[in-house]
Amino acid sequence: MNTIITIGREVGSGGRVVGEKLAEALGFRYLDREILAEIAQHSSLTEDYVQEVVERRPKPAFTFAGGQMMAFHETYATMPTQAIYQAQRLAVQKLAEHSSCVIIGRCADYILRDMHPIRIFLYADLETRVKRCLERQQGTETLDEKAMRQLVQRLDKERAKYYDFYTGLRWGAKENYDLCLNTAGADLSLMASILADVVKRLRG
Amino acid sequence: MNTIITIGREVGSGGRVVGEKLAEALGFRYLDREILAEIAQHSSLTEDYVQEVVERRPKPAFTFAGGQMMAFHETYATMPTQAIYQAQRLAVQKLAEHSSCVIIGRCADYILRDMHPIRIFLYADLETRVKRCLERQQGTETLDEKAMRQLVQRLDKERAKYYDFYTGLRWGAKENYDLCLNTAGADLSLMASILADVVKRLRG
Repeated sequence: MNTIITIGREVGSGGRVVGEKLAEALGFRYLDREILAEIAQHSSLTEDYVQEVVERRPKPAFTFAGGQMMAFHETYATMPTQAIYQAQRLAVQKLAEHSSCVIIGRCADYILRDMHPIRIFLYADLETRVKRCLERQQGTETLDEKAMRQLVQRLDKERAKYYDFYTGLRWGAKENYDLCLNTAGADLSLMASILADVVKRLRG
Repeated sequence: MNTIITIGREVGSGGRVVGEKLAEALGFRYLDREILAEIAQHSSLTEDYVQEVVERRPKPAFTFAGGQMMAFHETYATMPTQAIYQAQRLAVQKLAEHSSCVIIGRCADYILRDMHPIRIFLYADLETRVKRCLERQQGTETLDEKAMRQLVQRLDKERAKYYDFYTGLRWGAKENYDLCLNTAGADLSLMASILADVVKRLRG
């Protein structure tokens, strides 16, 4: 049986670094943008468009949690967010059944709950996360500290709304995860290496 | 420098088992009742009395958080809760300076913050915890499931009030810990063993 590791994370908490290194250490597939590519491959949507919709708040008046699901096959135009969630859900399931993997975000902890993933959540205080985001800014981006703080807080809120809407659970609430790690002051490479050992002992 | 591990825990989440086994695996001192003994040794209070006061909600109208401290040497009679907190705080500091240790509860994560402890919090869903508490009932105790659930919830609330009052922080909120572990369905011995490895890698 495949070992599935899901990583939820606050913006700037180092989820990508930890996830990539953890997957590498375990020889697992790392799934983040790849999931989007998988979706895009089976639809007429581009990766960037999917990403943009995924980051936005879903607007419908009911939730999919609890097993409800509406027909959505013709709704890409009218209900892009829900349609993409469903396409993404199928992609996550397909990829998880295919091989052991580390999946970042995407409500994967909830979608794959029947596969008993190891559910990790990474977090850190806001200042640490803003600092990390400022440091990794690319050349063309020029957000100052205040603007970056606002962006981080806004993206956190959007992640929370997305997760809460589709799962009926509360994003970042520790009861929804097996392991919550504070990355403030942490060596992310060491953390990934230690996590790889933990996974080996749990599933070895 | 001593390695200090503090374990906060919801009632019935396995804190004592994990803490004892972790201390044993690391060769560290395990501090729970011992702290109370230390306090009792330096006062006229019995261990049981200290335990009983510690489990009760503190009633004063201001908090000790933020470094404030009142003179308390003659206040055991009039303000037992605060006096015992202060005596306990001193005992925790003294014991932590003496040797590497695993300390359960007692706001030790906050009291010892300048020593940079590894701050662990253990939790699990209510049903799991009630079940554990029912299983470990001694012969003379005969709580049924409903009564045990009420007791677990009441004790959790008291722990939270005690912690929040003396630290100015929120008990169980993940930002106050380095590592939060869900013990539902977990093998507590394996968890302690894995934690010992984690500590060795972090402080090795």
